[in-house]
Amino acid sequence: MALTIGVDIGGTKIAAGTVDPEGRILRRAKAPTPRGDGEELAEAVAGLVRELREGEDTAPAAVGVGTAGFVDETRSRIVLAGNLGLADDPVRDRIARRVDLPVVVENDANAAAWAEFRFGAGRGCRDAVVVTLGTGVGGALIVDGELRRGRFGAAGEIGHYRMVPFGRRCACGNQGCWEQYASGSALVAEARALAAAEPKEAARLLEAAGGDPEGIEGPEVTRAAQEGDPAALRCFAAVGEWVGQGLADLAAILDPERFVVGGGVSAAGEILLEPARQAYARAVTGRATRRLADIRQAELGGEPAGIIGAADLALR
Amino acid sequence: MALTIGVDIGGTKIAAGTVDPEGRILRRAKAPTPRGDGEELAEAVAGLVRELREGEDTAPAAVGVGTAGFVDETRSRIVLAGNLGLADDPVRDRIARRVDLPVVVENDANAAAWAEFRFGAGRGCRDAVVVTLGTGVGGALIVDGELRRGRFGAAGEIGHYRMVPFGRRCACGNQGCWEQYASGSALVAEARALAAAEPKEAARLLEAAGGDPEGIEGPEVTRAAQEGDPAALRCFAAVGEWVGQGLADLAAILDPERFVVGGGVSAAGEILLEPARQAYARAVTGRATRRLADIRQAELGGEPAGIIGAADLALR
Amino acid sequence: MALTIGVDIGGTKIAAGTVDPEGRILRRAKAPTPRGDGEELAEAVAGLVRELREGEDTAPAAVGVGTAGFVDETRSRIVLAGNLGLADDPVRDRIARRVDLPVVVENDANAAAWAEFRFGAGRGCRDAVVVTLGTGVGGALIVDGELRRGRFGAAGEIGHYRMVPFGRRCACGNQGCWEQYASGSALVAEARALAAAEPKEAARLLEAAGGDPEGIEGPEVTRAAQEGDPAALRCFAAVGEWVGQGLADLAAILDPERFVVGGGVSAAGEILLEPARQAYARAVTGRATRRLADIRQAELGGEPAGIIGAADLALR
Amino acid sequence: MALTIGVDIGGTKIAAGTVDPEGRILRRAKAPTPRGDGEELAEAVAGLVRELREGEDTAPAAVGVGTAGFVDETRSRIVLAGNLGLADDPVRDRIARRVDLPVVVENDANAAAWAEFRFGAGRGCRDAVVVTLGTGVGGALIVDGELRRGRFGAAGEIGHYRMVPFGRRCACGNQGCWEQYASGSALVAEARALAAAEPKEAARLLEAAGGDPEGIEGPEVTRAAQEGDPAALRCFAAVGEWVGQGLADLAAILDPERFVVGGGVSAAGEILLEPARQAYARAVTGRATRRLADIRQAELGGEPAGIIGAADLALR
Repeated sequence: MALTIGVDIGGTKIAAGTVDPEGRILRRAKAPTPRGDGEELAEAVAGLVRELREGEDTAPAAVGVGTAGFVDETRSRIVLAGNLGLADDPVRDRIARRVDLPVVVENDANAAAWAEFRFGAGRGCRDAVVVTLGTGVGGALIVDGELRRGRFGAAGEIGHYRMVPFGRRCACGNQGCWEQYASGSALVAEARALAAAEPKEAARLLEAAGGDPEGIEGPEVTRAAQEGDPAALRCFAAVGEWVGQGLADLAAILDPERFVVGGGVSAAGEILLEPARQAYARAVTGRATRRLADIRQAELGGEPAGIIGAADLALR
Repeated sequence: MALTIGVDIGGTKIAAGTVDPEGRILRRAKAPTPRGDGEELAEAVAGLVRELREGEDTAPAAVGVGTAGFVDETRSRIVLAGNLGLADDPVRDRIARRVDLPVVVENDANAAAWAEFRFGAGRGCRDAVVVTLGTGVGGALIVDGELRRGRFGAAGEIGHYRMVPFGRRCACGNQGCWEQYASGSALVAEARALAAAEPKEAARLLEAAGGDPEGIEGPEVTRAAQEGDPAALRCFAAVGEWVGQGLADLAAILDPERFVVGGGVSAAGEILLEPARQAYARAVTGRATRRLADIRQAELGGEPAGIIGAADLALR
Repeated sequence: MALTIGVDIGGTKIAAGTVDPEGRILRRAKAPTPRGDGEELAEAVAGLVRELREGEDTAPAAVGVGTAGFVDETRSRIVLAGNLGLADDPVRDRIARRVDLPVVVENDANAAAWAEFRFGAGRGCRDAVVVTLGTGVGGALIVDGELRRGRFGAAGEIGHYRMVPFGRRCACGNQGCWEQYASGSALVAEARALAAAEPKEAARLLEAAGGDPEGIEGPEVTRAAQEGDPAALRCFAAVGEWVGQGLADLAAILDPERFVVGGGVSAAGEILLEPARQAYARAVTGRATRRLADIRQAELGGEPAGIIGAADLALR
Repeated sequence: MALTIGVDIGGTKIAAGTVDPEGRILRRAKAPTPRGDGEELAEAVAGLVRELREGEDTAPAAVGVGTAGFVDETRSRIVLAGNLGLADDPVRDRIARRVDLPVVVENDANAAAWAEFRFGAGRGCRDAVVVTLGTGVGGALIVDGELRRGRFGAAGEIGHYRMVPFGRRCACGNQGCWEQYASGSALVAEARALAAAEPKEAARLLEAAGGDPEGIEGPEVTRAAQEGDPAALRCFAAVGEWVGQGLADLAAILDPERFVVGGGVSAAGEILLEPARQAYARAVTGRATRRLADIRQAELGGEPAGIIGAADLALR
């Protein structure tokens, strides 16, 4: 049985685990993330690998590393990772030199998406798009059973196709990007705007935020929606509709069998997915005759998914 | 040297040819398209195959058929082809039974796009999107060197992702589809609207149309633009900008190395492509650091491309 | 008691009536509209005035004429009236010469709106906007109790402010005009698009149109909605929402006390007005604290309103 | 010669002046604005009035007060003035009691706009819209020679009609308000976004801001544009286009003879107005035949305009 080690390098901590071919994590380890020094980072990763191998007879087949930031198309360098304080860093070779095992590097979102595809809500299909609704909107494209990265490693930046001409400004410098409408930040902005414009309707959300619209945060919106608060449900309906429209656009282009929706906002489950499905069914081109893709909630949590996906990608 | 036969079934005629592995058409034949009868259609195709084999010693390796309409994901049936008068037709088996050769069926737009990828403006790269700007906007996705059809055979309907919320109505039943802004029809609509609103500025276009804005047609807009008419150039600039924006959206999702732009509107060449490139460079996410995809004009004409692409796909 | 004569010049017929100061029509007359000849048109109007005066002892105080087309700011000339076949026609003097009475000319939409303001759904307020939802969207502004025509006589072209950047094309040459979303034509377009994209949902509408989406017409959509057909109600909800948004925009600019909604689409009454009111209440700026304007259905029919309004304006 | 006293109550200071019938300020006085206490505020105003009357034989005819915040339709109370810390304050009576003269209260933006209309860039016409492009976008409607306030005193909130469906979020709780595109804040946001997305192009703007896009401020953008910096000019072109589109929308509704454009952004003069005029001419409905309204830069500075306008309104 070929075991591999998966590593998830995040902005504050590195999580690693030994993973079996069925995607189960057998053993785990973690360490804080060193910032701004590629050698230290590689050493921290190598330390976790050593820790996981302690007492094991058999060497793992490979080490898969999912990292924050943008990875180049050869998957050996970090091009830019703002929250790691790194740019143009030869991360793969730095680690390989230390662990004496094959090392595969991948963007962390891709790694987590791959885990969903292989062992989570995407299993059993060959064409899927994994959409992660967090602060922004990220995505991973699986086409004919493979993760596709595009020519320059930047495929799946689905949060930055333009949804609305002259729409809300995005940190990427553009306007109207999908992630300004369908992300966790969008949910919060929706709730705050509602509270500012219609304080009576948003009384519960406002109360939880001490009366200040700007104090409203995502988890409270989710909680309120789960307890049936009409204002919170209205916010989820609005965001869900944008999610569904975006999936319809992706379906026109990619025609996948399934969409897997993960990230913080997806924790609300059907409260988000049901309006998304309805919007999707009303918006997708050719809807009278086409078979509609499934829209499912992600099943694995973020950190385990990152470890599992990185580990599994290391075998391919 | 393995020769194959490529067939392009259009609404009015069927064009066929013997094609060599370098994508050259060695011999051609054509026949009118029978309407509304799958058996007659298959017989017409078989007749062309026989005609092309006449006097040849060696049998072709296979027959590739590109057909108008929507082909199912098993590539054996025409799901719906309005202008052939066919629905749910087992076209592959009907032809195979008659020619006693392997038969491969593909959507005609995909076939032509594949020819561009293999032997035209797309050669030499592994990730490309071929965009066809005709009456509508069609597309074909080449990812990691393969034509990708999506789970249900409908990938590449890029003309029907939503560009503008509440935008212009599309025949598909939606609003704001990209093809309402970036197609040949959009170019004509732009010219007609300009002529209606600013007849002086559009004097030349109006004159060529006998004074009636609704009489303006695409070829005249192209001709006027080529001769420097400011109104026609303004129309191309507008459409080109929409083309560029759409390519930027596709780049965010797919990150291809190259875009190949074909179809009737692309005959204007740089008059269209230059504003498209500028809009692309201003609109693509991450433009400060990313490598920009090439945007090139298609090189093969429509009909030869259909024959060549179908022939080449038959070998895969 | 000062009686006046009101005349409504439409594309096919001229309707005239003797009107008392309370806006009641005491006597009526009509004639076909001569096309393309200002003298004949004036003679036809004069003939109706003579007919109405027959047997009356007292001369009317004045003649008010509401006419199709665009009237200049001095209200003496028709600048352009396509469906009368007239341009730059000195209509007031032509008529005045014949009837030997003071003649006042007004655009017919303004005249009808004025009647609504004085004797219909607008009575009792000083600041109102009368919105006419017909083939297009027309409007009349009443500010501080007076009909306001703008500096060049073109105020109230509210159907042509831009609702959607790059939106649906308008006959005026622009894109995204309000009338492309909130008019009777918009209602029909909505129903046709729905029938094309979701034939099952629109079964009733399709059936009434013999199965062809393009055969669906406005009165049938209204009838179906009145009988509870969900597809038709969905169309009215969509159009009503656009109506409400437009009124919210007008409120931001003009802050009237009341909106009076007339024209063919308004015949559906609350089926249209209720979604309009809801959209208005959700969209108007400052909605948490501002007093919301009334939104009421027009009370007078089109032709009588035209006669009554023209007659009343003649006294001012 | 009837002199009046005009008072401009701003967030930090109160400016007052004695004004003659030609709109000249003969004498001036100022004081800091007391916050949060209506009586203190009235006393401060009364103190300035006394100071201005000192040594004058003749009493002024009236006192006109322009104040920040929202004034009710009877023009006697401040409904809400956030930056004065006042709500529902009977400001007119508080002042009148102290100065023993007729007192007229008006919103400060309306007062300044009125001055422009009477003595500045709007003089000589009867129908004008004064547009103030500051942090937000404000406006004042002059129809048939009178300032129009709407039924509830809120007319002219032109910055809050919706320009873009689902557009940029506005502090008013809505999305896509005009002021998010055409204000000084919009200019700054444009410059910052440009600097973030295309740092090379925006090198000069970035340099002046110490390299941080978020450090870019309006005056520097204006200065850079005046010195020909292409990036700054691009920002003004973008904002100017939105200004022109908005004026075109207002023209469709109100058809004024003239637009007077004031506020901080307008200091750039033709750099802003020329793209605005071009966009206006391309966007206004009926542009092939209609007479285009003038678009002129405001002539009076903000504070004098506030004093002069308030003083002049006091006489009406």
